[in-house]
This record gives sequence, C-alpha cells and structure tokens, in this order.
Amino acid sequence: MDKDATRKVFLNEFEPLREDLLDVIKLYSMPEEAIKWFSDSFSYNVPGGKLNRGLSVVDTYAILKGKKVNELESDELKKVTILGWCVEMLQAFFLVADDIMDKAEKRRGHPCWYKKDGVGLIAINDSFVLEGAIYVVLKKYFKKEPYYVELLELFHDITFKTELGQFLDLIVEAEHQKLDQFSMDKHDFVCIYKTAYYSFLLPVALAMYVAGIDSDEDMKQVHDVLIPLGLYFQNQDDFLDVYAPPEILGKIGRDILENKNSWLILEALKIASPEQKKILTESYGQQDAECEARVKKIYHDLAIDKVYEKYEEEQYQMLSQKIASIDESRGLKKDVLTVFLNKVYKRQK
Amino acid sequence: MDKDATRKVFLNEFEPLREDLLDVIKLYSMPEEAIKWFSDSFSYNVPGGKLNRGLSVVDTYAILKGKKVNELESDELKKVTILGWCVEMLQAFFLVADDIMDKAEKRRGHPCWYKKDGVGLIAINDSFVLEGAIYVVLKKYFKKEPYYVELLELFHDITFKTELGQFLDLIVEAEHQKLDQFSMDKHDFVCIYKTAYYSFLLPVALAMYVAGIDSDEDMKQVHDVLIPLGLYFQNQDDFLDVYAPPEILGKIGRDILENKNSWLILEALKIASPEQKKILTESYGQQDAECEARVKKIYHDLAIDKVYEKYEEEQYQMLSQKIASIDESRGLKKDVLTVFLNKVYKRQK
Repeated sequence: MDKDATRKVFLNEFEPLREDLLDVIKLYSMPEEAIKWFSDSFSYNVPGGKLNRGLSVVDTYAILKGKKVNELESDELKKVTILGWCVEMLQAFFLVADDIMDKAEKRRGHPCWYKKDGVGLIAINDSFVLEGAIYVVLKKYFKKEPYYVELLELFHDITFKTELGQFLDLIVEAEHQKLDQFSMDKHDFVCIYKTAYYSFLLPVALAMYVAGIDSDEDMKQVHDVLIPLGLYFQNQDDFLDVYAPPEILGKIGRDILENKNSWLILEALKIASPEQKKILTESYGQQDAECEARVKKIYHDLAIDKVYEKYEEEQYQMLSQKIASIDESRGLKKDVLTVFLNKVYKRQK
Repeated sequence: MDKDATRKVFLNEFEPLREDLLDVIKLYSMPEEAIKWFSDSFSYNVPGGKLNRGLSVVDTYAILKGKKVNELESDELKKVTILGWCVEMLQAFFLVADDIMDKAEKRRGHPCWYKKDGVGLIAINDSFVLEGAIYVVLKKYFKKEPYYVELLELFHDITFKTELGQFLDLIVEAEHQKLDQFSMDKHDFVCIYKTAYYSFLLPVALAMYVAGIDSDEDMKQVHDVLIPLGLYFQNQDDFLDVYAPPEILGKIGRDILENKNSWLILEALKIASPEQKKILTESYGQQDAECEARVKKIYHDLAIDKVYEKYEEEQYQMLSQKIASIDESRGLKKDVLTVFLNKVYKRQK
C-alpha cells in the first residue's frame, strides 16, 4: 500500500471513531447543544494536520510484522489506526491549549479553535475533553488486551513529560530571558520533553505493544534512538528556519525576530568573538529586520551552516551506528528506526 | 480519632507527597527554576480548601472497616490518605482552570493562581500538570494493587464526566441563555456531572477499592444514593444562596443577580402566574438590586421556601429508604451513606 492509500485507510477510521465517542456522550443524556459542540470541536481539532504521528503507528506496526499495510488483518489494522488517532487526539489537546497560551492566531492555515466565534476560553475545557476522550477510546477498544495497563501508563507518562516540556518553554518565555540566560540544557529539555516523546517515541511504542514486542529492553532500545533523533529533528527545524528557502519551507522563518532559544544562536554564542557576541546580544529577538540581518551576517561569518552540517553528519553516523547494533532477537526490527532516520536526514522542509 | 485529628493526619501526608513528586521531576533533570515553579503551584493550589472530599476517603474507609481512624494500620491509612490527596489534586486541576474560564478574581480568600504575578495563562499548563501528577502518584503507590486498573479507570471516567458537566455549564453561560431557555434537564446534568461525581461518588468509590468492597453491585448501590444526594446538595446550595442568613452562610448570595440557572428559579417558573413570569423574565439576572428584590418578592409570594422544604423532606425520605434497603452482604455499610446524608440534611451553610 502506498503512502496515500495508508492515509486513506487512516482517515476512513475517523468518522466511526467520532461516532463512537458521540454514542458514549449520548448515553450520559447530555443535552443536544453540548453534543453538537463536542462533535464540532473534535472534527475541527483532531484531523487536519499532517497526521505523521498517527500514520507512524500504522507504518511501524506493518514493519514489525514484516508486512505491507494492505496485507494486515482488518482487526490489527483497526487497532493501530485507533491508536494513531489517539496520538492525534493527544496532539490536538496540546495544540488547542498551546495556542491559547501562546496567543496564536492561526493553526494549520485556519483560525485557532479558541479564536472561533463564541469559543474563547471554553477552549480550555475543550482541550481537557479531547484528552479525556483518549481514555474513553482506549477503554472501549483495548480493555481486554494484555497490554491495556501499559497503554494507559504510556499515555500518562508521555502526557506528563510533554506538559513538563511545555512548562519550561513557557517559563523561559515568560521571564523574557536574555541571550546570556539561554542554555543548551534548557533548549534540549524543551525539545525532548515537549516534542520528542510524543512525536517520536509514543507512536513507535504503541505499535510495539500491539505487536507484542514490548520488553523493557526493546522499549529502551527504541527510546535510545528516537529521543536523540527527536532532538536532532528539532535542531534541524531551527536550522531550516534560517537557512531553508521560504518557498520550499512553506513559511518565512521568525526565530531570530522572536527571540527563539534556537540551536543556531546557542552554537553561534559558543564560537563568537566578544565583538560578535555584543552584536548578537543587542540584535537577537528585536523584532526588527535590520537587527535580524545583523544576526544573519554573523551566522554567515561564523559559517554556522557548516557547523550544522557537521552536526547533522555526526547525528546521522551516531544514530546509524546505534540502529546497526540493535538487538533484533525479540522481534524488534531495525527498519522501524531506519525509516524514521531517513525521513529526517537532510530533509528540506 | 476526632475530626481535627483526622485532618491533622491527612495534612501531615501532604509534604511527603509533594517531595515524592519533586523527586520524580528531578529524575527528569528538569532545570531548577521549573522545579520551583511546579512546587509553588502544587503548594498554592492543592491544599487550602476545606478538604472535605479528601477526608471523606479516609472516613469512608474507616467505616467500611468498622474501625475508628486511629485504629487503622499505618499502611492502609497511608493509602487512603494518598487517594484523598489525589481527589484534592483533581479538584485543584478543575479549579485552576475554571477560575481562568470564569475570569474569577479570588479562590479560597486568595488571588486565583492565574492572577498571581507572572503566572497568567501558564496556569492552563499548570492545571494539566496537576492532573498529570495524579497518575504519577497512583503508579508509585498503587501499581501492585489488584485494583490498580480500576483506580485509573475511575479517575479517567470521573474526570471526563466532570469535564462534560463543566462543558455544558460554560455553553449555557456563553449563550447568555434567557430564562425561557433554562431547563431542569440542563440544570440537573450540570449539577450531577460537574460536581456530584467527583465530590460524592469518587471519594467513596476509592475507599471501597482499598477495602476490597468493589463489586459492580456495590458500586451501583452507592452510585444510586450518592448521585441523587449530590444533586440534592446542589439544589440546597441554590436555596441557601437566597434564604440563608449571610452571616451564617459566610457570603452574600448572588445567584439572582448573576442569572444562575438555579433550582429556585426553575421551580418558581413552574408555578408562577403569567404576570409573575413576566416580572421574573424582566428582572432575573439584571445585576440590579431592585430587580433582585422583585424576584425575591415573587419567591416569597410563591412560598418557594416551602416548596424547597417539601423537596428536602422528600429527598431525605427517598434517600433514607434507599439506604435502609442497601444490601450489606458483601461488606458495604449503610453507615457510609448515612454519614453523608446527615451532613447534608438541613445544613445551614
């Protein structure tokens, strides 16, 4: 099955899942207007993204079973698709709330949910309901599975980690930290906790539970590749923000203007001369095009793109070696991780 | 052990619990400033209320075991105390978020958390972290218990129900519903879902799991008393808002001024003449003392206090009969429910 066909199978499961949830709420005799509201929030916020995380659950499972997606039994395909949607629900919960906290205007080209007429801060509770719905779905579809408790704990654990990552990100921002307060430690913590756990580890771990390849050793093996890979992915994001052509990236980078605690600025500060540091300190995060140009000039003078390229090669080598040494004896497949690495390595957008 | 002694035992467990959570976060190598923030949020938001819900877990467990609280073994006392704090953490999660959505100023006599300097909308994520911490605690203390999954499902289920109740409450409010759109159905749904489940059923169900009295039949028996009792409790709140002397109630009622979908107005509309209905419609929720006085005059003319007294008697009789017919053969004790009923019946504040 090609990529588009997998996406179609995945999308086809959305409506039945929404109906399932509506059935649960209707059982509670909830008034009609509230059922409609829930339904609208669910349809607006859960699909509509790139669905990479959700689709990863399906793709990973197929690799673990040594099959193509269209060769999977319908009941196993249903299970991994539902879990994929649970990851998308978790992401929707985070994004609806993040947009409020960040005072964002748009998400995926549309107004943020809280910006819609009549929604406002009710969106906070809507985000809670999106999270709560995950456990309704897990109970309905997985209660009888031997790995049910592990699923619950995995969602709890990764939700909590993501919240802690968001937490630090918000605090750093709220304190309007100056450049000299930026640190690679904080940067890495935010990247790993706020994004890598739920975007990289969660989909793979879910597929592993369904496939029955879920020993502590195998979970650790994938963790030890996917978490550094997630960090490298975010650092790549920081690089692309400045260096990717906007027509390919699909947006104009704003990290320098917005005082982003970016991998690039942290690396630049490491090797800048005192004079360059002074300019960076005065110009970074100033919401001014000339200041931005001055920072870019120093990035250029320091050849930060070369520093990044070296970093990318090192990451690729390090991760390739880790993957090569993966113990497949309990059923884990190196290919699961190779697919992820190849999607990230030298991506253009 | 008297009530104050139980409270002291309960409060003594708070610091160790907070330390446990800090230890978990420190394991994640979270930066110092974020650890401090979490610690501050936890201490500000979790204790400080009346702790009725948390203490109920302890009291209920003692009754189920036929012991006084001070006769309990230290390990069982620790378990029910920890679960009591989990209920208080759940409530803190709801209240921190509710205060933002309601644009409230004060909570428990202090500024709401989101109103504190430098907090603002970060409080949304803080509320998530309070919820997430519940599952960290449950995993640490209850993973090996045979009822661990049931605890997780109970918290999921009641959290989701509470969110749905809050949902309807917010929607009704956002639509600035007029008196003729108020309905007893919506009123009851909000009372039961937003408050009764987590305030009445949750503490008792938790104690029952620890005591091993957790058959579906017994869970249903307590549900069928505690949910109507919770509804009666809320209706009583509506009554007291207008009829209790402010010096006893501890506050001045504002339900009429604030257009509250109250049991009193719903009952008044049932029996009001067309002329009285017209005055109620014009005067209810007008933020004006004269309008409020006109509504009170009609309540008086309709003898709504007598309607309430009749309702209260009926509830008391109905609940007493239900309690009398409780099947105690599997270990459930009628006393658990009688204690709750006696706390509610004819309370003055």
